[in-house]
Amino acid sequence: MAAHPVDPKDIFASKAIARVMHNGEARYALLEKGGLKLYNGCVFSGAELSDICLDPAEAAFLAPTEPSKVVAVGLNYKAHAREMNHPLPEEPLIFLKPSTTVIGPGQAVIRPRNATRVDYEAELGIVISSLCSQVEPSRALEYVLGYTCLNDVTERNLQAKDIQFTRGKSFDTFCPLGPVITKGIEPGEVYLRALVDNEIRQDSHTSDLIFSVAQVVSFVSKVMTLLPGDVIATGTPAGVGPVVAGQEMTIEIEGVGRLKNPVIDA
Amino acid sequence: MAAHPVDPKDIFASKAIARVMHNGEARYALLEKGGLKLYNGCVFSGAELSDICLDPAEAAFLAPTEPSKVVAVGLNYKAHAREMNHPLPEEPLIFLKPSTTVIGPGQAVIRPRNATRVDYEAELGIVISSLCSQVEPSRALEYVLGYTCLNDVTERNLQAKDIQFTRGKSFDTFCPLGPVITKGIEPGEVYLRALVDNEIRQDSHTSDLIFSVAQVVSFVSKVMTLLPGDVIATGTPAGVGPVVAGQEMTIEIEGVGRLKNPVIDA
Repeated sequence: MAAHPVDPKDIFASKAIARVMHNGEARYALLEKGGLKLYNGCVFSGAELSDICLDPAEAAFLAPTEPSKVVAVGLNYKAHAREMNHPLPEEPLIFLKPSTTVIGPGQAVIRPRNATRVDYEAELGIVISSLCSQVEPSRALEYVLGYTCLNDVTERNLQAKDIQFTRGKSFDTFCPLGPVITKGIEPGEVYLRALVDNEIRQDSHTSDLIFSVAQVVSFVSKVMTLLPGDVIATGTPAGVGPVVAGQEMTIEIEGVGRLKNPVIDA
Repeated sequence: MAAHPVDPKDIFASKAIARVMHNGEARYALLEKGGLKLYNGCVFSGAELSDICLDPAEAAFLAPTEPSKVVAVGLNYKAHAREMNHPLPEEPLIFLKPSTTVIGPGQAVIRPRNATRVDYEAELGIVISSLCSQVEPSRALEYVLGYTCLNDVTERNLQAKDIQFTRGKSFDTFCPLGPVITKGIEPGEVYLRALVDNEIRQDSHTSDLIFSVAQVVSFVSKVMTLLPGDVIATGTPAGVGPVVAGQEMTIEIEGVGRLKNPVIDA
């Protein structure tokens, strides 16, 4: 588990959940009033706040959750669908990324040997709070712990070659998450961006989502049981593109923060 | 966790690993000389045999492993490729089934609401013993704990509709595993069969595999890190077909055993 510092300016949420290394142990923490208070236990099973408070500027951040699975939605932005000349889908198209893709803020994304095109994909990530199965949209948000920035890194040429998305999206380090999880946003009313070396490459808004957060959680829960900590990637807007070693990707979501990850070669 | 009895005649391996419920606890066990000896601890991290020995005929069996992920290979039998008019693939095509699909022997496979065609798929399952990343075929078998029967249950019409295999293969209960894990077979030299209500529907042999067990483990390990207990489904031969509620599916592999699961409607 690689832990990295996060610039406090890259956390936009005023109240959020983080995961940090403390004395060699991974701990959940509550970010509030500029301080980072450690939890005893796991936030998914009744954690209590401890008396230990850290300075976020000094903390070593991990991915804010350890999902058993990451369920991702394909085409889910209207402008992106139009750009790809796709009709709007009638229901979400889902695929999976294994838990071994997950890394935290600051950790390097590794371009695999023989990779020919590795792309960033900015996405709003949903973190599930409790066991969620066969849930209707009207109650789906009750199973959401909060939202985080997610980068659905993709080897585009393998995705195209295989037709199945799995290989191109499953390499180790291909799912940066973070820096924090917050419930303090209206998930259909935030902008999201991808930047490469501080240049904006994707610039969209979740009001352009075809399927809302509630619809997506409900849809997935009717296929497979979601477990506490599981993540749903809600799809990426127009503007995906490649990165090379030495560049830095940033996924920025209004009210959440900025997730930055350097790119290196294997 | 639903535990079910297994008829000792349905275990062909003379030496194997099982997982059973004992006093309300899931325990690994060694099947040897007709007895089932419980392990203390987990077989993936240095378990030791206890003094507790059970009669297999009285035991309550669980899925023999709790994988963090199930990685499956698409078209991997020559006769099946010919039957589908596909050229032989140059490399394995992989997809994922979430851990929430896994059930044990005897447990019911649930046909989802609105399902129109749910199929059995007989497959040889590989169980990974230890962290496995970037491994060459020549060393891949060192990371294999053993082999088990696997039923890659599939909602065929959703698979065809989505193009992506994920939804059709990810419903809860869609990955029966068991009854045991054995290393006592030559994985390229065994017959495998699927039966529905004791009628043979798939009848093939792993010598017809396009990519061997060693090649498949190596290939997957070069995409994603495999964790102890993870499962690879090696693909299904010709003869897949549908089942309905009230039927029983059996996956039979020479030297391993028979995995039986009833089918019910949600």
